[in-house]
Amino acid sequence: MLNEKLALHTPGPTPIPPQVAAAMARPMINHRGEAFSAIYRDVAEKLQPIFQTREQIYVIPGSGSSGWETAMVNFVPVGARVLNIVIGDFGERWVKANKALGFEVARLDYAAGSSANPADVAALLGKEQGTIKAVCLQQNETSTGVFNPVREIAAEAAKHGALVIVDAISSLGAFPFAMDEWGVDIVFTGSQKALMCPPGLMLIAASQRAWKAAEQIRNPRFYLDLHAYRQGFERAQTPYTPALSLYYGLQAALEMLHEEGLANVQERHYLMGKMCREAIKTTGLELLRQDEQFASPTVTAVKFTQGIAARTFRSTASKVFGVVLAGGQGALKETIFRIGHMGYITPNDVLVALASVENTLAYLGYPVETGKAVGAAQAVWLEHVRQER
Amino acid sequence: MLNEKLALHTPGPTPIPPQVAAAMARPMINHRGEAFSAIYRDVAEKLQPIFQTREQIYVIPGSGSSGWETAMVNFVPVGARVLNIVIGDFGERWVKANKALGFEVARLDYAAGSSANPADVAALLGKEQGTIKAVCLQQNETSTGVFNPVREIAAEAAKHGALVIVDAISSLGAFPFAMDEWGVDIVFTGSQKALMCPPGLMLIAASQRAWKAAEQIRNPRFYLDLHAYRQGFERAQTPYTPALSLYYGLQAALEMLHEEGLANVQERHYLMGKMCREAIKTTGLELLRQDEQFASPTVTAVKFTQGIAARTFRSTASKVFGVVLAGGQGALKETIFRIGHMGYITPNDVLVALASVENTLAYLGYPVETGKAVGAAQAVWLEHVRQER
Repeated sequence: MLNEKLALHTPGPTPIPPQVAAAMARPMINHRGEAFSAIYRDVAEKLQPIFQTREQIYVIPGSGSSGWETAMVNFVPVGARVLNIVIGDFGERWVKANKALGFEVARLDYAAGSSANPADVAALLGKEQGTIKAVCLQQNETSTGVFNPVREIAAEAAKHGALVIVDAISSLGAFPFAMDEWGVDIVFTGSQKALMCPPGLMLIAASQRAWKAAEQIRNPRFYLDLHAYRQGFERAQTPYTPALSLYYGLQAALEMLHEEGLANVQERHYLMGKMCREAIKTTGLELLRQDEQFASPTVTAVKFTQGIAARTFRSTASKVFGVVLAGGQGALKETIFRIGHMGYITPNDVLVALASVENTLAYLGYPVETGKAVGAAQAVWLEHVRQER
Repeated sequence: MLNEKLALHTPGPTPIPPQVAAAMARPMINHRGEAFSAIYRDVAEKLQPIFQTREQIYVIPGSGSSGWETAMVNFVPVGARVLNIVIGDFGERWVKANKALGFEVARLDYAAGSSANPADVAALLGKEQGTIKAVCLQQNETSTGVFNPVREIAAEAAKHGALVIVDAISSLGAFPFAMDEWGVDIVFTGSQKALMCPPGLMLIAASQRAWKAAEQIRNPRFYLDLHAYRQGFERAQTPYTPALSLYYGLQAALEMLHEEGLANVQERHYLMGKMCREAIKTTGLELLRQDEQFASPTVTAVKFTQGIAARTFRSTASKVFGVVLAGGQGALKETIFRIGHMGYITPNDVLVALASVENTLAYLGYPVETGKAVGAAQAVWLEHVRQER
């Protein structure tokens, strides 16, 4: 039944606006000419308010995962001791990356569904007495739908002279983030989340303090050497061939985000998270993050009731009800599903995702009153628009 | 709030699938070459099962409204007496077209929300004793969300030697229709309804009996002279420049309809109509067509509760809740709204449209239990998929 018109609720890749798709269909140009430089400058300028920084932002052809390596090899000497804060699977992956690159990893681990506690970071950094050169953390842990108090953790790191490196892949654009004000040293994101583009671009910025530290560092690196990007910035040129069509798309997406208004974009994401949580509470299913505080505005993780097979649940939602939900990752693979609500997603899209949860439960034989969860989400939305009047 | 991502629920234009949009972006070609002829033949072949005919189908650059004139000036002598069956605003418009073209119009009128009764047609044709040369009717009256029993009316017309001309603009593709089997002489539709394309193409077919009648007819006509199209059919060429990008789009849309399966497409439309009706019944609003029989699978008309201003209702649904509903036409302008559910629309889209009805009522201060109407529609959908198992 129009199976190709699926509602995509994975937490990245996210749906592409038609304006972005149209922009990406534009013809190839000479990337060493003025036409590309104009796009480069426009994109760089429109990104600064999203990062909340006066620093230069570099756009690199690569997956989000290239952000970990780019941040590390440019700003931290290989062999140095770093702290990885791990609240989920992406935190875990960053540990792997750091170890593979030759860093010595100290960890702070939290149970799935928890956020990091700045007091723990302070205690650990105090105990380590200046041996930790960098603190690595996700702003939003995509695998659990929980975010971290970046500002408070950055403040603790600064006290101990450690760089703060933030993976804001599934948050930047959708969350409040203030690189300069919060004292974040390095932050990176990907094109396929709140920035409403296909995957393929990694975007990264570094503070003056980070660049100062970089001067002393001679790590082995080539493709992800940010100095080459930095040297080209004034000329509005990339060191290697830029991913042109993705650049066109990013320009169109940034235009849309600014037209909506960055504060409105963040408010929309907060609203959608709240709609999901209030709806799920009516279903008998349990939120992985039960506390409202630090519950993600971009992805909601839900525990399965005993007896529901994860694979059956998601394939039913997709094949019978046309909604693509995400599964769990790592240890949570069989025990949760996730609703992505980031990027080119509206409250109406969230209603469809929630209807699919109800419909799928009912189809699989669980007692469900159809419309109850959707109705709870509608009520949250109505309350929101009433307050806006 | 992402205001440009509106859910379009007008009964035409309807949303365009990305595949159709992509096809329309293809470059222009020489329309007198083999590349276009191949598209022409493919489209002609894929249209026949939708019309359920062995006759040739012609694709003409024009609005749906050009269908009335094309059908009349090619197959009925100007000045002849014709019967117009009027169950709503589009029936009324056809009367105007016929009068403007110089036909003598007899009418059968029905109240808004009613369908035509074949017995009335039989009685009128009997009384007229062969003076009526053609019976003109809509299969689906877009302004009221009611359809007519075309097959039964065609049978009555045949008994009295009158041609049957059917405007299937808002039905063809979404409804069962069997031109040859039902004895329909002329049928036409538009590209922007169930055929999932932008407006701009009118598609028309005529029976052998109609073509035989056409031989004697010397009406003034030029652009809409179907003989010119007929002469080009074997060569797969149009008499005038075809609307190339719309042709590309139509080819892609037909490919999608056949892939879904024509019976499945019709079933989807029936399901969506049923979902709307069962949902509306829970809201306290009243369906314009209360009887299930002849209630349209492509558009549902709903009466306003006293006190709701039509303009406020629709602008709230659109501006606050992101759903574009249609207003009433003609005499129904202030008293109804309509939900279009045809073409590239899924049951999930219908849930969003219904949520917007609830949300808008609640926002405007009417007592509404959010989720009740949506839940009723979900229940209809669930029942449908359970039966399919």
